[in-house]
Amino acid sequence: MMQSIHPKSAAPGPFALVPFVSVANMMRLVNAVGVEVFLAELAAEIEADFRRWPAFDKTPRVASHSVEGVIELMPTSDGGTYGFKYVNGHPNNTAGGRQTVTAFGMLADVGTGYPVLLSEMTLLTALRTAATSAVAARHLARPDVASMAIIGNGAQAEFQALAVRALLGVNRLSLYDIDPAATAKCRSNLSRYGFDIITAASAEAAVEGADIITTVTADKRYATILTDNMVGSGQHLNAVGGDCPGKTELHRDILLRSDIFVEYEPQTRIEGEIQQLQADHAVTELWRVIAGEAMGRKSARDITLFDSVGFATEDFSALRYVRRKLNDGEFSQDLDLLADPDDPRDLFGMLVRSAN
Amino acid sequence: MMQSIHPKSAAPGPFALVPFVSVANMMRLVNAVGVEVFLAELAAEIEADFRRWPAFDKTPRVASHSVEGVIELMPTSDGGTYGFKYVNGHPNNTAGGRQTVTAFGMLADVGTGYPVLLSEMTLLTALRTAATSAVAARHLARPDVASMAIIGNGAQAEFQALAVRALLGVNRLSLYDIDPAATAKCRSNLSRYGFDIITAASAEAAVEGADIITTVTADKRYATILTDNMVGSGQHLNAVGGDCPGKTELHRDILLRSDIFVEYEPQTRIEGEIQQLQADHAVTELWRVIAGEAMGRKSARDITLFDSVGFATEDFSALRYVRRKLNDGEFSQDLDLLADPDDPRDLFGMLVRSAN
Repeated sequence: MMQSIHPKSAAPGPFALVPFVSVANMMRLVNAVGVEVFLAELAAEIEADFRRWPAFDKTPRVASHSVEGVIELMPTSDGGTYGFKYVNGHPNNTAGGRQTVTAFGMLADVGTGYPVLLSEMTLLTALRTAATSAVAARHLARPDVASMAIIGNGAQAEFQALAVRALLGVNRLSLYDIDPAATAKCRSNLSRYGFDIITAASAEAAVEGADIITTVTADKRYATILTDNMVGSGQHLNAVGGDCPGKTELHRDILLRSDIFVEYEPQTRIEGEIQQLQADHAVTELWRVIAGEAMGRKSARDITLFDSVGFATEDFSALRYVRRKLNDGEFSQDLDLLADPDDPRDLFGMLVRSAN
Repeated sequence: MMQSIHPKSAAPGPFALVPFVSVANMMRLVNAVGVEVFLAELAAEIEADFRRWPAFDKTPRVASHSVEGVIELMPTSDGGTYGFKYVNGHPNNTAGGRQTVTAFGMLADVGTGYPVLLSEMTLLTALRTAATSAVAARHLARPDVASMAIIGNGAQAEFQALAVRALLGVNRLSLYDIDPAATAKCRSNLSRYGFDIITAASAEAAVEGADIITTVTADKRYATILTDNMVGSGQHLNAVGGDCPGKTELHRDILLRSDIFVEYEPQTRIEGEIQQLQADHAVTELWRVIAGEAMGRKSARDITLFDSVGFATEDFSALRYVRRKLNDGEFSQDLDLLADPDDPRDLFGMLVRSAN
């Protein structure tokens, strides 16, 4: 009699399966597209979403801090699609052979609340962070930029170099890290891409004459990677590494001399370099420059600073881009993530029938 | 030369893999343990965590509301382990063959930020919600309870019945739903478990003389499932269905006559039945009763109300319980979720090598 009421099987139905992009598949996808093309296309997505910024639900990330690091959830929605990322930041992880930052994320349909994509985002975060830096530099750096210094040559450095070259054609790099092995690793990885690379003996030497300075270090504390005397007129700074309360990279005096651009002001006040400034110190949200609502660089002599902390819309853009590239399962596998009973009110019946 | 620097493979390393519990595996696990034993053991976990309530980081869930429903993230941490759940609530989903509520969740190690478990939680949420209701009833209902009315016979009803019986021995049920087909489904599912079941012709008839009344309906609006005259002295109410802003099940007058118990007051003020009351109306957090810090039921004639909205610690308890039951892969599969380069700073090198 039960069978006549519940004639169907307990196998996953069409709504049960969610495409999942593993690390292996993300690497296959990036390599199939080509990392430089991937970064350029991703930058275009991020820029397009910055342009329609008012369409997004925005909220500062939800952070859980501990002595060892931070775990964060970063949600957003454009009304049709919802997305969030889980991401941690644990500077001491590398000592144990782990990544400082790992991440995964998902997209869901706002109309049903059903997840439509689950994806690794450790790689994707490095890619989207670099793409965002490049977008900022394209809108804020001098048009004639030719060189970039990268201070901090860890997991994100190569992506930063490739993204800025993809968007601005910058081919000359100076690299510096307190650990020479990190610089050697970065230089070795980038050498096959035809960059003109200098290994600098100090941060001072690295930034000397660079058109763009990218700081991307990982210490979770107030650090002074750049002091005031190291930054000169006309330079553009991407401050990528200072991205949580108590973690900054730039001396306060640099901030006072710069035009400062941020992603989402309420979040950056908490997490960015500008936590060193008064709460009413003027900053400009980058999307307004991209949308033509605010001025970017005002002269070739200004110092422009993109105080990057990473924002949920960038992850959203990245996940949507990946989803479009999946090519019907070529770069994903289906996960049985959602319960999908034949009768949606009969969750219990599905459980019982699965035992038979 | 690259090879001598990076001698290792691009295959996932030991830190890359995260155990994943699919819907199919969750069903296998629940059926292997037995649903009633599972509910009883889960209730014990939830109760134990309520007892150490001050140990948890608590925050109201992060909700994204739309016309169609709500998508929520529910994080918590006990300092050693972090957990969160993704959950949606879309009342119109059933019309399209989808679940009103679907969910998945994860646990991570606070020390490294690395995920240690990813799991379906549609089934697990129904189980933990029922287990929590039963824990509340054990601490708040009269000791001599023998019967329960369930108003709303959808996806969660059977779990509620089994959990309350597992903890309190309540074997007599009266069922009511505005849709008789839902009641028929629920009765059919429960009939094999030896309950003494009455199908009631109305909500009034269902609750008449019941020792416990459980309301678990799904409409996202102010509804009055129970009016004041339907509730009598000595009854215990589990109000499970009213769980988001604008969604309630009980007439306000019932609240005014009841001793009200909640999970986490700041969240329940927003989401629970008590959104109908003044913000200073006295309520008691359930954990205080369990920990012996507050009085539960004061007399056999009182009306006690558990204004359940579901809280992150319950999901945390459930995920930790499931993790302990996995038995080394018997009920999980390993997902390649985390990038794990040989050198943690060489994320880019891992990407490049994977192409070879």
